[in-house]
Amino acid sequence: MTHLESLALRFTHTPHQTELWILDQTLLPLKEKWVQLTTVGEVIEAIKTLKVRGAPLIGVVAALGLGQSAIKGTCLKQLENEAQALYAARPTAVNLMTCMNRMIAGIRSNKSPEALLSIAIELFTEDLALCEAIAQNGAELIASGDHILTHCNTGGLATAGIGTALGVIRKCHQQGKQVHVYVDETRPLLQGARLTTWELKKLDIPYTLITDNMAGHLMQQNKVQKIIVGCDRIAANGDFANKIGTYSLAVLAQYHTIPFYVAGPYTTMDWHCADGSRIPIEQRKASEVSGISGAFGHICWATQDTQIYNPAFDVTPAELVSGWILDCGVFTKTDFKQRKVIQYMPLLAEQVS
Amino acid sequence: MTHLESLALRFTHTPHQTELWILDQTLLPLKEKWVQLTTVGEVIEAIKTLKVRGAPLIGVVAALGLGQSAIKGTCLKQLENEAQALYAARPTAVNLMTCMNRMIAGIRSNKSPEALLSIAIELFTEDLALCEAIAQNGAELIASGDHILTHCNTGGLATAGIGTALGVIRKCHQQGKQVHVYVDETRPLLQGARLTTWELKKLDIPYTLITDNMAGHLMQQNKVQKIIVGCDRIAANGDFANKIGTYSLAVLAQYHTIPFYVAGPYTTMDWHCADGSRIPIEQRKASEVSGISGAFGHICWATQDTQIYNPAFDVTPAELVSGWILDCGVFTKTDFKQRKVIQYMPLLAEQVS
Repeated sequence: MTHLESLALRFTHTPHQTELWILDQTLLPLKEKWVQLTTVGEVIEAIKTLKVRGAPLIGVVAALGLGQSAIKGTCLKQLENEAQALYAARPTAVNLMTCMNRMIAGIRSNKSPEALLSIAIELFTEDLALCEAIAQNGAELIASGDHILTHCNTGGLATAGIGTALGVIRKCHQQGKQVHVYVDETRPLLQGARLTTWELKKLDIPYTLITDNMAGHLMQQNKVQKIIVGCDRIAANGDFANKIGTYSLAVLAQYHTIPFYVAGPYTTMDWHCADGSRIPIEQRKASEVSGISGAFGHICWATQDTQIYNPAFDVTPAELVSGWILDCGVFTKTDFKQRKVIQYMPLLAEQVS
Repeated sequence: MTHLESLALRFTHTPHQTELWILDQTLLPLKEKWVQLTTVGEVIEAIKTLKVRGAPLIGVVAALGLGQSAIKGTCLKQLENEAQALYAARPTAVNLMTCMNRMIAGIRSNKSPEALLSIAIELFTEDLALCEAIAQNGAELIASGDHILTHCNTGGLATAGIGTALGVIRKCHQQGKQVHVYVDETRPLLQGARLTTWELKKLDIPYTLITDNMAGHLMQQNKVQKIIVGCDRIAANGDFANKIGTYSLAVLAQYHTIPFYVAGPYTTMDWHCADGSRIPIEQRKASEVSGISGAFGHICWATQDTQIYNPAFDVTPAELVSGWILDCGVFTKTDFKQRKVIQYMPLLAEQVS
């Protein structure tokens, strides 16, 4: 029997049953409801509607969903179609694509259902280890007494492990460092206000919630010592895509000479993408901006027919980044320029070669 | 008979009745409900709860409320107490204090109730003219084809006239210039999403609503040619307070070399305030950030006991401002350094001397 469990994911596999469950993140923090995903179609719907979210986690859930489909007897040809459909569920985060590429390689080499599921399980356990390594590496950059600003949610809800940017903060707290977190609410979908506060409260880490437009004011008053964010895709030159609002934080950090770090696993690297201008930015529906939807109901406050722009991500250029906190180490601008990062990433080297 | 009417204010005075009505801005854009204010206590409550808002408008409404109280027979001693209470209703915007100083001067020189009301009426009509002059001055800075980013609400709902920053945009539109407005939603109270979109729709000026954290991304893509904001207080050195989020826009504008203008009437100048560090910043209640309240109901999405920071304003230093668009002209950093602005402001000169 295999049982995998993380903050927002439960997977059980025995000879008699295979079950994939996710915590519906659209309902947090008001309601903790677990939803079973029985088909790849349901997995895609859960990814698109953000019931499951976070670049590393959607990759792992997609892989387990595909593994479950294999176990249930889906033929290899159909499995490859399902993998392609999953691949396209969200366009910006590359972890999903990295995970699907691993699964597709297995499908094309005619692996058995159990062997395909093993790849997915490997991706889950690998993500746990990647998060731990990121946290260890990042914690060295944080001093006791630091007030750390973060954006969106990058914790246990966004990964199979303890998280990326939030994992670093959690590790500092475990190490006994005094840290306090400023949490951007992260409009439009409020991942900061709804999810990061929920996680920090569970972890008993002190935090203060702010609206996104207060971050600059805090920096101006010297109330922020470090900024750490996650990422959805890192290009070969170090540019990276992350939740909308990240780029503004990077510019503000530079103006105030505050270290600005990005944290992620190697599965977020995309060596095929030369720079940030090649990263596709997902555009989402207008109703996310004209109001709010959630467990609390649906409300709309803008006038009818309001024209809306709703990019889910933005791209931060490498020149604004103080350090890339990856599982294989903390890298600098020079490391990226000299393509040193790749030396530490055997799997990526394979991809590139 | 005197009848004053603006987008959010109606005032009637005859020998038989005096009536002050405001449009309840907390209910916009879902409901257009006019509320009568019969006592100074009601005026204060309306200001504190933002039923009436906008630095110039609250000054005018406060003055008319006090004038109404004089007409209703309140003695001079009590009127001065009421003026002091109004003065303290909101701490950041200085227009309220400027208007109350004018009323208090009248009270102390034992003016008749009708004469006191006349001062208030004068403040209303003066604001109309100030808005018009600001708009004329500012429109010269805008080219046809410009995409203009603005923050909060600075239009007919914020003044007795056509507005400050939004008045400039409206004037350009009247002049036949093609302008398009990017409207920051302006969390936490959504004055941009609720009020500015409502005004722009009525004026038939094309606009696009964004969340505050998208502004930097738009600038990065060269989609913004000008930024114009209003102000709640301008210090003697040109530093100014405005709705939270303004400072971040100013930093982003400088990074992208986009002209950043602030628009306001001379009543927003505070020569007694040497620089921005002396401007008191109003802190508001946590529930504004942990959720949303409005005509659509009250919702809360953050976890219980969430620690919240909620400054209503921030301060932008003069060094980040490309130009101050005042009723008496457009001023530069050098003008402020050389205290040239005061030469154009006879009433301010009186204050300072």
